Amino acid sequence: MNYLTFFVAILFYINGIGQIQYPNVIVIFCDDLGYGDLSTYGNPTIHTPNLDRMALEGQKWTQFYAADPVCTPSRAGLLTGRYPIRSGMTSKKRGVLFPDSAGGLPKSEMTLAELFKTRSYVTSAVGKWHLGHLPEHLPMNHGFDHYYGIPYSNDMNAKVGLWGNYEELINDPDYDWDYRNYDVPLMEDDQVIERPANQNTITQRYTDRSIEFIKANTHRPFFLYLAHSLPHIPLFASYGFRGRSKRGIYGDVIEEIDYGIGEILKTLQEEGIADNTLVVFTSDNGPWLRFKTHGGSAGPLRAGKGTTFEGGQRVPAIFWGPGIVRPGIIDTPGSTLDLFHTCSTLIGKKNRKDRKMDSYDLTPVLRRKEGSPREEFFYWAFGELHAVRSGPWKLHIKQRAPVHYGQVVEMDGVELYNLEKDISEKYNVAEANGEVVNELLMLIKEHLEHTSDALPDQLEAKIAE
Amino acid sequence: MNYLTFFVAILFYINGIGQIQYPNVIVIFCDDLGYGDLSTYGNPTIHTPNLDRMALEGQKWTQFYAADPVCTPSRAGLLTGRYPIRSGMTSKKRGVLFPDSAGGLPKSEMTLAELFKTRSYVTSAVGKWHLGHLPEHLPMNHGFDHYYGIPYSNDMNAKVGLWGNYEELINDPDYDWDYRNYDVPLMEDDQVIERPANQNTITQRYTDRSIEFIKANTHRPFFLYLAHSLPHIPLFASYGFRGRSKRGIYGDVIEEIDYGIGEILKTLQEEGIADNTLVVFTSDNGPWLRFKTHGGSAGPLRAGKGTTFEGGQRVPAIFWGPGIVRPGIIDTPGSTLDLFHTCSTLIGKKNRKDRKMDSYDLTPVLRRKEGSPREEFFYWAFGELHAVRSGPWKLHIKQRAPVHYGQVVEMDGVELYNLEKDISEKYNVAEANGEVVNELLMLIKEHLEHTSDALPDQLEAKIAE
Repeated sequence: MNYLTFFVAILFYINGIGQIQYPNVIVIFCDDLGYGDLSTYGNPTIHTPNLDRMALEGQKWTQFYAADPVCTPSRAGLLTGRYPIRSGMTSKKRGVLFPDSAGGLPKSEMTLAELFKTRSYVTSAVGKWHLGHLPEHLPMNHGFDHYYGIPYSNDMNAKVGLWGNYEELINDPDYDWDYRNYDVPLMEDDQVIERPANQNTITQRYTDRSIEFIKANTHRPFFLYLAHSLPHIPLFASYGFRGRSKRGIYGDVIEEIDYGIGEILKTLQEEGIADNTLVVFTSDNGPWLRFKTHGGSAGPLRAGKGTTFEGGQRVPAIFWGPGIVRPGIIDTPGSTLDLFHTCSTLIGKKNRKDRKMDSYDLTPVLRRKEGSPREEFFYWAFGELHAVRSGPWKLHIKQRAPVHYGQVVEMDGVELYNLEKDISEKYNVAEANGEVVNELLMLIKEHLEHTSDALPDQLEAKIAE
Repeated sequence: MNYLTFFVAILFYINGIGQIQYPNVIVIFCDDLGYGDLSTYGNPTIHTPNLDRMALEGQKWTQFYAADPVCTPSRAGLLTGRYPIRSGMTSKKRGVLFPDSAGGLPKSEMTLAELFKTRSYVTSAVGKWHLGHLPEHLPMNHGFDHYYGIPYSNDMNAKVGLWGNYEELINDPDYDWDYRNYDVPLMEDDQVIERPANQNTITQRYTDRSIEFIKANTHRPFFLYLAHSLPHIPLFASYGFRGRSKRGIYGDVIEEIDYGIGEILKTLQEEGIADNTLVVFTSDNGPWLRFKTHGGSAGPLRAGKGTTFEGGQRVPAIFWGPGIVRPGIIDTPGSTLDLFHTCSTLIGKKNRKDRKMDSYDLTPVLRRKEGSPREEFFYWAFGELHAVRSGPWKLHIKQRAPVHYGQVVEMDGVELYNLEKDISEKYNVAEANGEVVNELLMLIKEHLEHTSDALPDQLEAKIAE
């Protein structure tokens, strides 16, 4: 090395220290928010000005998939970058974890928080967890420094009899839910601090906690996982938002979440760290259609939560970060599964090689709007593989849509849809495209082999009485 | 009057001459474009950056209604500000005008063009007319100085047998339509200049003609009615747009229209007249679902063209005008019927009093985002009143959805929907809201009385053989 080379190297190094700082990452994850529930995704009566602006200044993805069509497995997929079948977090026996469940996310899994810990990030989980509520399964044991939120769904431990007459409740679009009917604990780290959690103010309290965390960590890299427990039923909005939306209580809830996101983005800008922060907004699955006007809308997509039709798994996804994201509308596929690999790249690491990953690096799309590296997506539900997407094609080999999730679907052989041209999955074109069907069946066969070493079912075990 | 008052009055007068010039008005009217076909209204694979920007800089209306769910009556309603039943332009016998029709818009009607003529505007109609193709019914006889376009739908005079196998055509999403199969004339003023019209380039030619007209009239007020003949089937895009959209040929067509609108807005800005121009973008009815991927999407709305469900009549509507329109999302009702009264106000005239009008002044909404003055909307189809909307409530008393329009709907008594909370018209709440039903039935009764002096059916007469 001559002097000149050495000098240039030093310059780059200094420049690197000054500028190439690992970015902060905020993942905002809603519960049961549908593809059609934001104004920028076509909702006529819910106003989401902050998310609309976020979509305009960042990237609005129109083909983005939650890892699973129900809560627990979807969250496992987002945090690990692996299909939930691999970690045993989807089950034929129980769809999600319940208050009597003994299981949770296995300690052998590496979460996004643990990934960020390898670069000494400070990490916080705010909101709904739903990956195990026994002490060993809580966020503090999965890489998070702090936790503030509820350990499972906001409708659990409901008063006896409450769901018996739910049809009656649900037919009143102005039904006034009472949080005292749901004995859900609010936790701070590993302690219960309020029970039942006052859900009227829970969205606002999650937002406040998030902003406090950001303000306390402006001088070191942080990872914030803000998993709103709404708009999952029962629905609650704080007094200032009640009756604000024409859409009713469901719209009030979304508008309060939207307002909070506006406050978070404003905080990033006021603190001067917006240019070095990536904010991701998305949802854990589609709308819970069984709950009528108390559930959301999948917009033009077919069916909703609990199904592997697009309405069950395709969700709004907005990536924002003035220093990272090149604005635009992105219509190539991506998934919450990809956040793991994407964040690995952001902190200068390669994707994990010590286990099978299902995560793609989306940074070329975020930074330069290149085509997505995700070529296929597999639709799992209730422990079984239902469908696969490759390019515009989606092949259904199975459809399980329990009444509980609002739709019953009869299946006669396989069904093939072109998702780009037939956006509502209306026209089965399997017959005319035998070759495509065969290619996709081959992909499915390979994927089933590739997932045959899955961990055992973690959702079925119950706490001993 | 003392000197000071006189002086101030003169100042105001001069200021008035200098500034309060009547605005130019451009109405861009698509054919069969659905509520869900633009990116800003939630379409995942059609990219409409120009319309998205227009929506952002102007007003995006989410509860805006075409006057009727099919072509001819919808156009009559837009141009006259009166429900088409009043002018005899909707019929139980023939849904629209055909090449063998003898009728057209009665000369006794006053059109938007004739309204603007009272202030000496220069007026031009570009695109599809469909209000009578015999000489006496053409645009030149309804207040337009110029006409360039096709006199009826772009699928008319089809080759014998072509529609016999339409199911086959339509099941191929890449079907390559041939304009030579449709013997549709292209007219300039009252002359046929090309037959069959080369529809491959028709969108681009409409755009070019519109831009020429704007550039030739930058120093006097003008009214341009640009009624694109697409995306009505058969579908055509010019070579530069073919294969551009992931959505297939349907998306290509929309993206070419979008591009042209970008050029028009750019022209207004380059010519320095954007601040004194109002541009309205909307559609004549919902998507023609019978044509599968060759038809559009109603997004979250129920059904499509030919029906009085929301998917048949609620359409995208964007109002743009930097000097006139206060930007925002508007979710109060409006209709193409309201353009007449709105334009009357813009040119300093009161609404017409010599006949029954169904038009409301939307300028308080456009200028100041006040609530819409439109309290009710009546849904007519095929010469019959089907439904009424008042506030959030919509009452169906009849549903006619011929197979030809892709949906068949059985009706059992009346149906009541809350359109704000139940955006997809899924939950009939008539039983629980008897009082609302009665109020709406009363509105219907009054409206039927108010329209009982309608002109006779103008659509049924055929040219004598």
